[in-house]
Amino acid sequence: MTSPLKLDLVDTQTAELDELRGQSYQTRRATVPALEELLYKPLPVLDHGFVRVVDYMGDDSAIVQAARVSYGKGTKQVSEDRGLIRYLMRHWHSTPFEMCEIKLHVKLPMFVARQWIRHRTANVNEYSARYSILDREFYVPSPEHLSAQSKSNRQGRAGVLEGEHAQNVLNMLKEDATRCYDNYMWMLNEDESKGDHDGLARELARMNLPVNFYTQWYWKVDLHNLMHFLRLRADPHAQYEIRVYADAILNVMKAWVPLAFDAFEEYRLGAAQLSATGVRLVQRRLAGEKITYEQSGLSKREWIELCELFDVSQ
Amino acid sequence: MTSPLKLDLVDTQTAELDELRGQSYQTRRATVPALEELLYKPLPVLDHGFVRVVDYMGDDSAIVQAARVSYGKGTKQVSEDRGLIRYLMRHWHSTPFEMCEIKLHVKLPMFVARQWIRHRTANVNEYSARYSILDREFYVPSPEHLSAQSKSNRQGRAGVLEGEHAQNVLNMLKEDATRCYDNYMWMLNEDESKGDHDGLARELARMNLPVNFYTQWYWKVDLHNLMHFLRLRADPHAQYEIRVYADAILNVMKAWVPLAFDAFEEYRLGAAQLSATGVRLVQRRLAGEKITYEQSGLSKREWIELCELFDVSQ
Amino acid sequence: MTSPLKLDLVDTQTAELDELRGQSYQTRRATVPALEELLYKPLPVLDHGFVRVVDYMGDDSAIVQAARVSYGKGTKQVSEDRGLIRYLMRHWHSTPFEMCEIKLHVKLPMFVARQWIRHRTANVNEYSARYSILDREFYVPSPEHLSAQSKSNRQGRAGVLEGEHAQNVLNMLKEDATRCYDNYMWMLNEDESKGDHDGLARELARMNLPVNFYTQWYWKVDLHNLMHFLRLRADPHAQYEIRVYADAILNVMKAWVPLAFDAFEEYRLGAAQLSATGVRLVQRRLAGEKITYEQSGLSKREWIELCELFDVSQ
Amino acid sequence: MTSPLKLDLVDTQTAELDELRGQSYQTRRATVPALEELLYKPLPVLDHGFVRVVDYMGDDSAIVQAARVSYGKGTKQVSEDRGLIRYLMRHWHSTPFEMCEIKLHVKLPMFVARQWIRHRTANVNEYSARYSILDREFYVPSPEHLSAQSKSNRQGRAGVLEGEHAQNVLNMLKEDATRCYDNYMWMLNEDESKGDHDGLARELARMNLPVNFYTQWYWKVDLHNLMHFLRLRADPHAQYEIRVYADAILNVMKAWVPLAFDAFEEYRLGAAQLSATGVRLVQRRLAGEKITYEQSGLSKREWIELCELFDVSQ
Repeated sequence: MTSPLKLDLVDTQTAELDELRGQSYQTRRATVPALEELLYKPLPVLDHGFVRVVDYMGDDSAIVQAARVSYGKGTKQVSEDRGLIRYLMRHWHSTPFEMCEIKLHVKLPMFVARQWIRHRTANVNEYSARYSILDREFYVPSPEHLSAQSKSNRQGRAGVLEGEHAQNVLNMLKEDATRCYDNYMWMLNEDESKGDHDGLARELARMNLPVNFYTQWYWKVDLHNLMHFLRLRADPHAQYEIRVYADAILNVMKAWVPLAFDAFEEYRLGAAQLSATGVRLVQRRLAGEKITYEQSGLSKREWIELCELFDVSQ
Repeated sequence: MTSPLKLDLVDTQTAELDELRGQSYQTRRATVPALEELLYKPLPVLDHGFVRVVDYMGDDSAIVQAARVSYGKGTKQVSEDRGLIRYLMRHWHSTPFEMCEIKLHVKLPMFVARQWIRHRTANVNEYSARYSILDREFYVPSPEHLSAQSKSNRQGRAGVLEGEHAQNVLNMLKEDATRCYDNYMWMLNEDESKGDHDGLARELARMNLPVNFYTQWYWKVDLHNLMHFLRLRADPHAQYEIRVYADAILNVMKAWVPLAFDAFEEYRLGAAQLSATGVRLVQRRLAGEKITYEQSGLSKREWIELCELFDVSQ
Repeated sequence: MTSPLKLDLVDTQTAELDELRGQSYQTRRATVPALEELLYKPLPVLDHGFVRVVDYMGDDSAIVQAARVSYGKGTKQVSEDRGLIRYLMRHWHSTPFEMCEIKLHVKLPMFVARQWIRHRTANVNEYSARYSILDREFYVPSPEHLSAQSKSNRQGRAGVLEGEHAQNVLNMLKEDATRCYDNYMWMLNEDESKGDHDGLARELARMNLPVNFYTQWYWKVDLHNLMHFLRLRADPHAQYEIRVYADAILNVMKAWVPLAFDAFEEYRLGAAQLSATGVRLVQRRLAGEKITYEQSGLSKREWIELCELFDVSQ
Repeated sequence: MTSPLKLDLVDTQTAELDELRGQSYQTRRATVPALEELLYKPLPVLDHGFVRVVDYMGDDSAIVQAARVSYGKGTKQVSEDRGLIRYLMRHWHSTPFEMCEIKLHVKLPMFVARQWIRHRTANVNEYSARYSILDREFYVPSPEHLSAQSKSNRQGRAGVLEGEHAQNVLNMLKEDATRCYDNYMWMLNEDESKGDHDGLARELARMNLPVNFYTQWYWKVDLHNLMHFLRLRADPHAQYEIRVYADAILNVMKAWVPLAFDAFEEYRLGAAQLSATGVRLVQRRLAGEKITYEQSGLSKREWIELCELFDVSQ
C-alpha cells in the first residue's frame, strides 16, 4: 500500500549519507576525531526517529581563539583552555560559543517538531509534505511511557496507564494513524490504484495526518543556542518525547567539545538559580538561624524546591 | 461530548477581548483611528479561523521619524512623508519600517501554523495542547478549494475535484477528524464519562489529532518583517490556506499605515525582479532587436515568465 | 564655529518630540498612565546624553494575556497576575514578556553605542554621520569617575585619579576632542568660511572624531530582550558609562510594568547562580560539615564569591 | 613609543593562524580545495586591514542537499545542481543557503565596523579596548579616494580633493590620529615611562581614539546572510571603505561556492527591480507606445534610473 516512489526519497538520502561517510578529505580546518567517528551515523531515538551529525565547524579551541580576540593578551593569565572555557560559561559570555556550529539531520514526530521549532535562532530545512509524500511512519509510545495525566499539575505526567486500558489506548493510536494514512494515500491516488480519478493536491491531503507522524529536517545551530536548547529540553520537566532527542544530542556535544561540555554540566545542567529571597534565607540559615516556611516569604512551591535543592527537611 | 471546561477558555478569551474593545483611554502615543476601529474585532478566515488586531505601535509618521534620525536634516528636501516612505521602500531601507509593531491574535489550522512559524523574526505565544485541551474544530476545504494535484508541477494545484469523488474526499476528511477527536477525548477522559480509568497525559493524547485541527496564537511582528511575510504569503504561489490569512492582514496593514501600504504595492507586490540576463534582453528588445527563446540564454521557464511579465508573444 | 545647519536638526527633533508630548488621543489599547507621564521627556544621562521614551506597547496584563493563551485555562488556578508573572520569570518563560515592546530615543557616546549595539535582538535607527553632521558634543568624565586601571584585574577600575594628574587627563580629553572637531568642521567646510575649497565628503571627515563624541538613535526592543540588556548592563561589573543608561531605563521599566519589575528584581537582579559544585558545598555545609577552600573543588575566585554571596567567612 | 606588550597580542595571533595553516587533517566533511588554499591567508584591504578565512562549513552540494530534504524527490527532475541552485536563488528560497557557514577574521577601521555591525544576523567576537590596548594603526585614505562632498546629493562623493588642499587634509588626519594615540598611551601609562602616576582605566582611555583606528573581530555568518551583506555593501552606492571589504569577500565566496556565486551574480548583483509602474511602462513601450517623463507617473529620479537601466534616451 506504500508508494514505492515515496520510499525512494528516504532510501536515496540514506544512501547519499552513507556514501559521504565513506569519503575522506584533507583539510586545514579544526577537526575533531571523536566527532568524525559519529559523522553521518544515525543515532536512534523513539520508535522511528534519529539524530545524525551531518557537518560541524569549530572545536573547543575555536571558543578559546574567539575569546582571545575579545579579551586579548590578558587571557594568557588564564591561559589554560579548560579554565578559560569555564570562566566564559560561568560569566554567561555567549559570543565565543557562537563560533562553533553543528548541522544535524533529525527525524522526529510532528508534535515534537512543533516544540523544537520554537527555538528560533537556528537554520532549518524541513521535508515538505506540500511537495512530497510523507512516509507511513508514526510514533506510538512504548508501554512504559504511556503516562497518565497528573491531576494536581496540568503540566505533568503521573504514573503509567496499565493493563487492558493501556492496550486500548495503544490500539487506538495505531488504528487512527493507520486509517488516516490509508485515507491520505487514497486521496493522493498517486499510482491510480484506487481508480482513475484525480489525486487531491498533496498540500491538502496531508491535512489528514495526525501529529504523531514523522517528519525530518536539517537543523543547523551554533553551540550557544544549542546549549540553550539542551538546557530547556534535557530538563526533567521537558516532555519525554523531546527529551530523548536532547539526550542524544548531549552525547554528540560531549564528543565534539568535551571542555565546553564539562563546563556546561557544572554551570548549567547541574547548576541552580536562587532568588533574591532564597539567597537571604540561605545566609540566615548558614548563620545558624532556624527558619520555617511561614517566615520564609516564599511561595509553598518555592519553599519546597529550595529545601529539596539543599536536601534540608522542610 | 465536548468538555465544558475546554470551551470556557475560548469563551473567556472572547469575552476579555470584547471587554477591551469597550474601553477607551487617553494616550500621547501615535494613534491610528482607522486601526482603532478594527481593534479586537475578529476578521473571519477559512471555516473557523480568524485574525484580530490586539495591539499596535507606531504609524506612517513613526517610519518618517526614524528615517529622519538616520538621514538627518537632508530629508527635509524630500520632506513630504509619502515621498520619503516610497524612497525608503524602493531602496530597501528596512530599519525605519521596523519601528512599527503589530500584535495579532490568530486562529489557524496546524498545517498552516507550521508554514507560518517558519518566519522566525516574530514573537509567538501559542495555545499549548500540552497543558490544555484543544477544541473540536478542524478545517475542511469548501468544495471550490478542493484542488487536484498538478501532474506537471509538484508544487501546484490543477483544477478542482468534482462530483461524487469530491464528496468522498470531504466525507473522509470529516470522518477521520471526528473519529480522531472522539478518541482524543476518550483517551483524556477528563470528565470520567468513559469510565473511572486514568486519563492519558494531555501532552500524549494530542498526538492523535490531524494537522487540520485549529490552534491559536498571539503573533507580534514589526512592519518590515510583516511585509516580508505578506510578500511571500500573499503571493499567488502560496498555498491558498495561508494566503487567505495574508489577504486579511493586508487589509489590516492598509488601515494601519496607508502610505507604507501604497509603497508596498508599488515596490513589492506589483514589482518584478529582472535577472542580469533579463535586463540585457529587454535592452536589446527596446533597441529594436528581435530575440527568440533560443538566443535568449534563459531557461524555458524564465523565458515564459519574462514574456508574460511584459505581455509579449513568446 | 558650530554650523547653524547642524543644530537645526537636533532643535527640530526636540521641538517635534515636545509637540508630541502636548497631544492626547483616544485609544482602545492597553495604556499605562505612569509611563504616559514620562513619554517624550528626556531623562538626562552623563554630561550630554539622555534617554526618552518615544512609544510603548503592552503592559503587565499583556504578559498575563499571552501566558494564558499558551497555558490555557489552568492558569486560572494561579490567576492572580502577580503570581503568574513571578512564575513565568522564575521558570524562564520568555515569550510572554516578548509581547511588550518599548521604543527609546537615546543620545550616547559612540564608545557606549559600540557596546550597546552588541545586543542584536533590537531595532535601531542611528543618526548617520555619513549623511549628516555630528554636533560638537563629547563626553568627558566627571572627576569622581576618572578611574585608574586596576593592576590585578584587567577588566576593572581601581581608585580614582586625583589632583594635578587627573586635571591633566581631563584637559587632554577636552583638547583632543575640541581639536578633532575643529578640524572635522574645517575639512567639511560647509559654510565655506575656511576658504572656497571643496569640502571633504562627510562620510570621510567623520573618521577624525574620537569615540567619546555623542551619537543618537531610536532603539526599539521587546521586554524580554530589554531585561537581558538590563541584567548585563545594570550589573556592577558593567562599565559605568553604560550602566547609567541601564539605571535610567530600570526606572522606565518600573513605571511601565511594575509587576514584571518586581519579579525581575527577585529572580534576576538580586538572584544568584550556583554551580553544581556550589550546590553540593552548600548542602554539606547545611548538614553541619566544615569545608575549607582546599576541600571545595572550586577555583579561588569561585570560592571567594561563594563565601561572599552567603556572607560566610572564608 | 608603542608598548611591546600590545604588539605581542597581534603577533601571537598571527603566529597561531600561520601555524594552523601548516596543519592538515583527515575529515569526512564537505571540503572545498579552492577555499582550503585561501584558509588563514590575510587578504589585504585598505592601508592596514585584512580579511582572512578562519573556517567554513558546507559547499554548493550542501545547498542542494538541504533543498532536497525540503522539496523531496521531485527535485530529481531539476537534478542538475547548477539548475537547482539558480532556481532557489531566483525564487528567494533562503533556507538552503543558510546551511553553509563561514568564519572570517577581519581587521577594519572602527567607522567601517560601525556600519558592518548593523547586519545583526551574524556572530561576532571583537577585540575589546576595554580589556586590551589598541594598536597604533589608523586609516588614512589614499589620495585618489579623498573625495569631496557632493553638493547635490548628501549621500555621495563628487570628485577628489587635489593639490595642497588634499595634502592639508591628509596631514590633518594623520596628525590628529597620532596625537590622540600618543595621549592615549600617555593616559594609560602602562610602562610607567611617563612617570609613576596611575594609569587611566583602559575602558576610559580608549575614548580618546578617533574612529579611523583599526579594530578586529571574528565574524561568522551563514551564506544567505553573507549574500545579503554583499548585495548591500558591494553596491556602488556603498561607502568605498566598506565596499573594498565586500569585494574581497566576493572573491572568497567565488572560491567557496562557485555555483551559488554564479547564481548570485545573475539574480542579485546584476539584477534589477522594477516597480509596478515600471513594469507597465516597459509593457507599453514594448507594445510600441512612445512615453515621456510627464506621462510616466514616475518621479524624476525613478524615470532617469529606468531609462539608464535599459539604455534608453530620456
